[in-house]
Amino acid sequence: MRCWALVCLVKLLGKPEMEKPILIEGLPGIGFVANIAAMHMIRELGGQKFAIIKSSSFQDFAMTDKDGGLKSPINELYACADRLVVLYGNTQANDNVGQYELCWEILKLVREMGGELVITMGGYKRERLPRRPRVLCAATDEELLEEAKKLCDGIILGNIYGAAGLLLGLGRLMGMRGVCFLAETLGLYPDPRAASEVLKVVSTFLDIEIDLSKLEQAAMIAEDMWRSLRPPEETRPPRRRGEGIV
Amino acid sequence: MRCWALVCLVKLLGKPEMEKPILIEGLPGIGFVANIAAMHMIRELGGQKFAIIKSSSFQDFAMTDKDGGLKSPINELYACADRLVVLYGNTQANDNVGQYELCWEILKLVREMGGELVITMGGYKRERLPRRPRVLCAATDEELLEEAKKLCDGIILGNIYGAAGLLLGLGRLMGMRGVCFLAETLGLYPDPRAASEVLKVVSTFLDIEIDLSKLEQAAMIAEDMWRSLRPPEETRPPRRRGEGIV
Amino acid sequence: MRCWALVCLVKLLGKPEMEKPILIEGLPGIGFVANIAAMHMIRELGGQKFAIIKSSSFQDFAMTDKDGGLKSPINELYACADRLVVLYGNTQANDNVGQYELCWEILKLVREMGGELVITMGGYKRERLPRRPRVLCAATDEELLEEAKKLCDGIILGNIYGAAGLLLGLGRLMGMRGVCFLAETLGLYPDPRAASEVLKVVSTFLDIEIDLSKLEQAAMIAEDMWRSLRPPEETRPPRRRGEGIV
Amino acid sequence: MRCWALVCLVKLLGKPEMEKPILIEGLPGIGFVANIAAMHMIRELGGQKFAIIKSSSFQDFAMTDKDGGLKSPINELYACADRLVVLYGNTQANDNVGQYELCWEILKLVREMGGELVITMGGYKRERLPRRPRVLCAATDEELLEEAKKLCDGIILGNIYGAAGLLLGLGRLMGMRGVCFLAETLGLYPDPRAASEVLKVVSTFLDIEIDLSKLEQAAMIAEDMWRSLRPPEETRPPRRRGEGIV
Repeated sequence: MRCWALVCLVKLLGKPEMEKPILIEGLPGIGFVANIAAMHMIRELGGQKFAIIKSSSFQDFAMTDKDGGLKSPINELYACADRLVVLYGNTQANDNVGQYELCWEILKLVREMGGELVITMGGYKRERLPRRPRVLCAATDEELLEEAKKLCDGIILGNIYGAAGLLLGLGRLMGMRGVCFLAETLGLYPDPRAASEVLKVVSTFLDIEIDLSKLEQAAMIAEDMWRSLRPPEETRPPRRRGEGIV
Repeated sequence: MRCWALVCLVKLLGKPEMEKPILIEGLPGIGFVANIAAMHMIRELGGQKFAIIKSSSFQDFAMTDKDGGLKSPINELYACADRLVVLYGNTQANDNVGQYELCWEILKLVREMGGELVITMGGYKRERLPRRPRVLCAATDEELLEEAKKLCDGIILGNIYGAAGLLLGLGRLMGMRGVCFLAETLGLYPDPRAASEVLKVVSTFLDIEIDLSKLEQAAMIAEDMWRSLRPPEETRPPRRRGEGIV
Repeated sequence: MRCWALVCLVKLLGKPEMEKPILIEGLPGIGFVANIAAMHMIRELGGQKFAIIKSSSFQDFAMTDKDGGLKSPINELYACADRLVVLYGNTQANDNVGQYELCWEILKLVREMGGELVITMGGYKRERLPRRPRVLCAATDEELLEEAKKLCDGIILGNIYGAAGLLLGLGRLMGMRGVCFLAETLGLYPDPRAASEVLKVVSTFLDIEIDLSKLEQAAMIAEDMWRSLRPPEETRPPRRRGEGIV
Repeated sequence: MRCWALVCLVKLLGKPEMEKPILIEGLPGIGFVANIAAMHMIRELGGQKFAIIKSSSFQDFAMTDKDGGLKSPINELYACADRLVVLYGNTQANDNVGQYELCWEILKLVREMGGELVITMGGYKRERLPRRPRVLCAATDEELLEEAKKLCDGIILGNIYGAAGLLLGLGRLMGMRGVCFLAETLGLYPDPRAASEVLKVVSTFLDIEIDLSKLEQAAMIAEDMWRSLRPPEETRPPRRRGEGIV
């Protein structure tokens, strides 16, 4: 019996009927801006989880919550507001190949559902912030860019790392258009203010109303998760090359 | 002739008839707690080896014993007491992808045999120890957690690294419940005392009697293997990038 | 739904009819010599793009241009002058396995089109340069080497790294002959002079006329891209092992 | 068009008829002991090359010889003396997974040809040497070990790294027996004396006569190759993460 590398596992809990769903990326990154924004969208718009995604490039551990319950590194897709597919999760993939495969499989699924548009969100790290964090944009084609620029304070200069950038490039290869919105942030901790600015732009762009009054709750959940990231190192076994062999 | 990456090879020596077998993880980790405990279970309960597992993420070497015999990095499955599948071995996988594939293949096999429960064991590293090492727990669902907490001194705080954590998360994805028991240990050498505390809890949990009087022997085997881990480095060839080419 | 690693994706936009096409490698490397030369060939010879290639060993980001447009790490094939397939791109693969797969898939495609010859180009780094950069060569067989040596100032001593070397070795395995031309360069920035010297040799070798007067434009494009490589690091999210998990 | 990772490519030039061929490993390692010994066997016994092997875990470059000819990282199989398959090459794989796949594919091929025995050779690094380098052994079963010990000066203590160790462990999984012979060496340069001692033992073990008078020639070839390993670094392009993108 011979087996091949499991790289990405997509478990469908259902396949929602949607017309031309729009993929909204909300994975953890700078200031957890996309993560907070995505969680808030899911809560406010009553998102229904329909897919669980595991990658062998996620970390190989389990996390406990304060009651002894167990969580795992995971990505999930939620159907929201009849036309949004929100990608939420507590991790991105830890290496290049895993990251490509993860984004590819998610795009393939959304494309099969009829999707034609990808929106990615995130934070744009700054040393200092203006009073109101600015929101910057970039897009895969000019028409979309013009539309996005009207809602933003400027364009993104520099590279867009991780899923927020990769989903746009791979999506284009599949014939999907893409736009990215980044809000300025110090990026030192989960930043609900930046998430709020991104959400305002995204909701206007989508012509959807989203109540922002409970955004702080989403930020608190993110902060809580973020703190659980720094446990005492005591439970980590030796697994450097050679150490694991007895 | 073109070939694809071999990642995980499961060689079945037989397929024992078992009803709803319970997977018990006993791979090397902190203080070799799980390893000692698993070896003791196999010896005391008359375990029968029924599968050999190799991963290309195990190290690429052979180990000699003191008589010139050869051992390899390996994992094995043992059928014990009509309803246990004990995972024993001298290594975990050396990288993320290999670790996921290894756990995935093992779970798949146990799931196909009808398994619904995973128990993982291990050490919880401490700077100092109380007189009796405490045993802590975590579980994938509340019912199991309540059951486990009654037998333990507290719950696990922090991450559970390696196979002990990963088997729980991947198992849940397959519809298997999971519980983890960690005993406090200094983790500086194979620790039979911590293994003994874990075994007491696990045997009560499973309602199986296990004689602990010969546990020291299992620890000695682990210690022996552990020492063989530190051979003089003289036999290691040059294989850094570029060095191996002549 | 279980998925396997995407390593290399070749999207054909068309399959040009060519008789024994010659593969010309022009990926980024020392002094961007091959890159500039390839871009100039494509422009001067009216190359038609017929394939887009993505590898999961390319970096996982998107790049913005100064107008907010988006580019991705990519390789492309162009049909030029009825018998050339020019490999152009803004990156090589970031790891060994990806590099082999990338070169293998490109060679396979050109081989299927009837190709029997591979020409690779590049820079040969020097601390100081003579007045005119010298062009050096190496080849997979003696006949080709003799032919190449007549046009060059000497032979290559040392290893030929990256696609420029790998395409020759893998090509030979497929029954394709190969020759490499490297021009001396300081390699500190995109070097049109070295590209010009390589192009003179390659065009003579191919018996094709190429006007070199607009070569500076190709160099400027390369320089522009090269500068876009060094954006402020602010947009990079935390993604070291463990950091990405919330 | 989607492609999967090429990991190991075996190109058969022919399939020699042999009865229970014995695999002899002779890849580069400490002191190039196995490499020199294998090359000498191939030359003295008139070995016929019948397979070329490439791995995507070999390095991605081409090497030039002093005349401008090109060599690549490669492994080869030679049929010798009606019953030996000698594994010769200028590299081992650069990573774990590639190393497993390489050894696995070679073993599979020899197993299909009817092979039941694997002999691996190598150097055992020492700070100082006795007048005559000693030869040490290890084996997968007691009978073979007893046979080997009669011809050797002692047994191997410690790990056997690389293909020399891995072929034994994976071979056993396929039902092949295995024995390893290591000669003491300072390991600082290609060591024909150690190779000579290993060859004496191996030829006695195999009951084959091998003239050792021209062994120095094999060592000189190895030394030549070894020197070509240290070219000026000038031809290496930038390919660290991010550098390759323009």
